[in-house]
Amino acid sequence: MIHRRIALLAAGGAFAAPAFLRPAAAQAPAATAPAQAPGFYRFRVGGFTVTMVHDGFFGRPLEGFVRNAPLAEVQAAAAAAFLPTDRQVIPFTITFVQRGDTLAVFDTGNGVTPAGATAGRMIANMAAAGIDPARVTHVIHSHFHGDHVNGLLNAQGARAFPNAAVLVPEPEWAWWTTEGNQTRSPEMQRGNFANVARRFAPYQGAVTPFRPGAEVIPGITSVAAPGHTPGHTIFRVADGDAQMMFLADLTNRPEILMANPDWQIVFDFDGDLAAATRRRVLDMVATDRIRVTGYHFPFPANGYVAKQGNGFRFVPADWSPVV
Amino acid sequence: MIHRRIALLAAGGAFAAPAFLRPAAAQAPAATAPAQAPGFYRFRVGGFTVTMVHDGFFGRPLEGFVRNAPLAEVQAAAAAAFLPTDRQVIPFTITFVQRGDTLAVFDTGNGVTPAGATAGRMIANMAAAGIDPARVTHVIHSHFHGDHVNGLLNAQGARAFPNAAVLVPEPEWAWWTTEGNQTRSPEMQRGNFANVARRFAPYQGAVTPFRPGAEVIPGITSVAAPGHTPGHTIFRVADGDAQMMFLADLTNRPEILMANPDWQIVFDFDGDLAAATRRRVLDMVATDRIRVTGYHFPFPANGYVAKQGNGFRFVPADWSPVV
Repeated sequence: MIHRRIALLAAGGAFAAPAFLRPAAAQAPAATAPAQAPGFYRFRVGGFTVTMVHDGFFGRPLEGFVRNAPLAEVQAAAAAAFLPTDRQVIPFTITFVQRGDTLAVFDTGNGVTPAGATAGRMIANMAAAGIDPARVTHVIHSHFHGDHVNGLLNAQGARAFPNAAVLVPEPEWAWWTTEGNQTRSPEMQRGNFANVARRFAPYQGAVTPFRPGAEVIPGITSVAAPGHTPGHTIFRVADGDAQMMFLADLTNRPEILMANPDWQIVFDFDGDLAAATRRRVLDMVATDRIRVTGYHFPFPANGYVAKQGNGFRFVPADWSPVV
Repeated sequence: MIHRRIALLAAGGAFAAPAFLRPAAAQAPAATAPAQAPGFYRFRVGGFTVTMVHDGFFGRPLEGFVRNAPLAEVQAAAAAAFLPTDRQVIPFTITFVQRGDTLAVFDTGNGVTPAGATAGRMIANMAAAGIDPARVTHVIHSHFHGDHVNGLLNAQGARAFPNAAVLVPEPEWAWWTTEGNQTRSPEMQRGNFANVARRFAPYQGAVTPFRPGAEVIPGITSVAAPGHTPGHTIFRVADGDAQMMFLADLTNRPEILMANPDWQIVFDFDGDLAAATRRRVLDMVATDRIRVTGYHFPFPANGYVAKQGNGFRFVPADWSPVV
């Protein structure tokens, strides 16, 4: 009976829901598959409403993912978390923060991906959550890796967020827009220079760099967290006593990197600095019991950090049916 | 802008979605509140499709919840899991299992609740998941506490699952339908006798007791797990090598009861037996790394059990956008 219902929806019958409310899976070509729930989740931080929006996932071999630990140790960490031991599944979840007429998004997902890709679901899940890209007032970037900036462009190569101001960490902007830095970057990071030029091109005049440490918009303050990239930045969202932090890529999957904060991953620009930053910030949010969101945390990618052994563990926040 | 969109939906405008696709919160009276995602989640076990459906939650004072541990220790366990230390929030998530034309549900939720209640969201979330109660072929009960059987009735007091066979553990059925057992039951359990009579009344002729240990329908086998109630039963769902277990009330919230498996809660009929059963089954599913679902686990209430210290910990399964 589930199958017939979905088939009807996919056919766009008279009673079909508007696209923005259809579960994402119902829009997939496999009309006979039962639908997954749409990938969004909401909670409040004082007067802010936070919406977590899933963009799918990316899989890569587990081998080579961590640079400074034997594969067997990384596999053991994955197995302890009941994750695959042959590949690293990297989920993407984007943090939106809304208060009054302000709707900010931290990073922009993978954008338009080829049919059948496991990532690129952000726009569909935004629609399911009732978020129109044209209403986004601020795009706030943590750093400029492709999975964080590619969604700046829509399918036509134009602005995916046509009315948004784009706020970028000054050191991140400086690094990736200075051509001479290319040869000073690790080889596998060099593609970012061309990609950054391409993704930001339609936003000329809309991009404003900020100094890490600055309040970027009322209630949202940036915090320097370099290492993963030269200008990697995280953010504190505060309203009175209520606060949360968006940790961006301070860690990749917490099951691997919070448990082993000194591990360095293949995507780190400066692994030593990334690990030092990771320990410093995790210690702070664990000590202060601050709610956090992350870009590669397991969906819905919000919760708390606790100290455990020589590292940390991620504690997902309890799911609430009430926002 | 989110607010305006929701208001439009709540007003039932020309482009409003059919009710079964509207996020549950959009149906609430507070039309200006941003909607939460609907409370369902799907995954596969071999040829079975499992759908977890949220029924909301119930809150009660944390004091008195655990009978054989000092409040301060229980509060410490709650704090370690970033849960409230003044009250116990008990979520309800119902496990549906579908294969071919068979659609079985384990227990039935809280059913119809007063307006404003924090539980009673199962029917709305079933609708969001595309599950029509009339299509349910089997209701399979773990035990007869009110939060597990009240949903047998709809708002009219008739069968909520009009076409389902109702399969019940023989020892559970025998206990709560034998009036002489009332004085042999703990005082706070005595209300179950009248409630069981009322909830099963419209199902005369549709109820079939089974002996724990029996395969109740193809691929679903019952396993005796007594203590929480006299006939408390859990279930194994298996298709070839793929399997999962529905653990029902083997534990209440795992953050409290898996971490401290010897604790006994106020709802246990026989706390000593419940604790012994809990240790035995948790040890088995941890050793065999079997995926489990639970009735009071944090939504979406599916994952794995790992040994930790003198107890266990619940590891939520990774959320997947693909069923």
